[in-house]
Amino acid sequence: MSKPYVLGIDVGGTNTVFGMVDARGHVIATGAIKTGRHPNFEDYLNELHAAVMKMLEANDAVDKIHGIGVGAPNANYYTGNIESATNLPWKGVLPFASLMSEKFGIPVVITNDANAAALGEMTYGAARGLRDFIMITLGTGVGSGIVINGQLVYGHDGFAGELGHVIMRRNNGRLCGCGRTGCLEAYCSATGVARTAREFLEIRNDESKLRDIPLDAITSKDVYDAAMMGDKLALEIFEFTGNMLGEAFADFTVFSSPEAIILFGGLAKSGELLLRPIRESMERNMMPVFKGKVKVLLSELKEADAAVLGASALGWEAGSSSVALQSQVSAQQPQQPQQ
Amino acid sequence: MSKPYVLGIDVGGTNTVFGMVDARGHVIATGAIKTGRHPNFEDYLNELHAAVMKMLEANDAVDKIHGIGVGAPNANYYTGNIESATNLPWKGVLPFASLMSEKFGIPVVITNDANAAALGEMTYGAARGLRDFIMITLGTGVGSGIVINGQLVYGHDGFAGELGHVIMRRNNGRLCGCGRTGCLEAYCSATGVARTAREFLEIRNDESKLRDIPLDAITSKDVYDAAMMGDKLALEIFEFTGNMLGEAFADFTVFSSPEAIILFGGLAKSGELLLRPIRESMERNMMPVFKGKVKVLLSELKEADAAVLGASALGWEAGSSSVALQSQVSAQQPQQPQQ
Repeated sequence: MSKPYVLGIDVGGTNTVFGMVDARGHVIATGAIKTGRHPNFEDYLNELHAAVMKMLEANDAVDKIHGIGVGAPNANYYTGNIESATNLPWKGVLPFASLMSEKFGIPVVITNDANAAALGEMTYGAARGLRDFIMITLGTGVGSGIVINGQLVYGHDGFAGELGHVIMRRNNGRLCGCGRTGCLEAYCSATGVARTAREFLEIRNDESKLRDIPLDAITSKDVYDAAMMGDKLALEIFEFTGNMLGEAFADFTVFSSPEAIILFGGLAKSGELLLRPIRESMERNMMPVFKGKVKVLLSELKEADAAVLGASALGWEAGSSSVALQSQVSAQQPQQPQQ
Repeated sequence: MSKPYVLGIDVGGTNTVFGMVDARGHVIATGAIKTGRHPNFEDYLNELHAAVMKMLEANDAVDKIHGIGVGAPNANYYTGNIESATNLPWKGVLPFASLMSEKFGIPVVITNDANAAALGEMTYGAARGLRDFIMITLGTGVGSGIVINGQLVYGHDGFAGELGHVIMRRNNGRLCGCGRTGCLEAYCSATGVARTAREFLEIRNDESKLRDIPLDAITSKDVYDAAMMGDKLALEIFEFTGNMLGEAFADFTVFSSPEAIILFGGLAKSGELLLRPIRESMERNMMPVFKGKVKVLLSELKEADAAVLGASALGWEAGSSSVALQSQVSAQQPQQPQQ
């Protein structure tokens, strides 16, 4: 008999959230542990295993899990490894999927968090029925999950879909976390918006509610609040951010001609404040053959559930895909996490 | 019994070239007619049909064609239409595949010329065995065919893969044929290289063999010839062109993480003169996770055969795909080409 549930696990820098999901996308039960508590990965895995088992036992579902899907930063779908994730406590190349599969005795497939978000949106959210779309996550960074022909794009090495790192300013661009300059992420992430605020406030002299906040403490949330109160400088920051996102989306369109670009993450909660300038800029910059064809939508998943739902969508694949089987096979061999 | 041959047809602005190809990629016979001779599409189709039938009869192959693949400018894989191709004599939306399928009584699939080139390279050339690569055609324009997971990327509307129209200069960019400014094509096509030459010659005062040629008559071939003779200004033009292509290729990589980017077309014949600055710039601009991973290769197809081989690769698909069947069904209904 086929097993009725999947497990979705979202590994974040602060928390690891997990949930048991049925085939209709209902989150039956959830739980969480602190990611950062364990400098040793084995200790982390043991606590995660115990917490998950407790949840499964409480729901009489220990033997009813088809597969485990994991969304994690820098996770590689092909290798099952997490490679050099700067915001996780474990360094180097970590054979995440095989170690987890060994511990749980269930097939595991992993991918990065933005890809998991795209899968969740395709299975349960705004992208249902779409075969060609791009998910953009606007959080601390700018992530992306690209779906073409109904399939996630992993690329030849599993790292495709880093659209936060297209170069938007070739001269005098801002330094990005990736080590280069001018990346989209350096301008249009939540931290990028805060940087824009500091830049505008330093260069200009006009009044703004943002001047009441110490320059180094300004967040994108402060900019949002000020803009909602009609603050002109804050509104211009959203205009600037939306304008650049629209330029980038026009470039993405000539690549894969998506039916929609779907926004997710903290900054996406700004709604029309960000959507209007994005749409205007995207159409203004669009190659004529694509004008008026590409929708810009907000995620339809509740933020609390989205990460788990996205990862869980991969869990259905885990039960059958060759990638997951590889993890199982390699789990038979002794493997050491690198520290 | 399955039919042993396919027909590949390349519709160019000047000539329409066709060939009969076997399953191993051998071009058995070829022919050509002038594309521009017929302002009326029906007349063109009649001449093409007669010329093809003559070739098939001479090779005893009238009933041995599995399908017809066509590469043509602005051709849409999904609709079978050619839409507003500026360098063909027929205006508006032309139901190319259905009209041709009706005339020949054989399934027809069409796609744009750069996609056909990518298919040819994947089936018979430098991309054999690759599941993720990008074909870049450097001719009068800059075209592209993107392959992900072993499939051509058509996008939701059939027009994906217009990588000649990513914006490389957001301020003061050159006017492009698409109506916008700053597109890659305006700098890195053969005509773009000639424009760079004129720009350099007007702005600068240093000696160059290119000054012996009237400014408006300079072609990319002249720049190549001068560079091969060691002309410093001509060499700098290749450096400039390769530098921008490398910047663009680094951006393409964060999208689909291809195993290789393959160059085709007149300008690609410049070989190392262009490849060296491209590779250097691409690596210099590459996001760290992709450094050293992406090959830049030249097409391995003979230019004379490449267009026909690429289109013919689509001919195998034509015999079985739903797209081709649609064309056949719609060919049953009366259709009028728009003039």
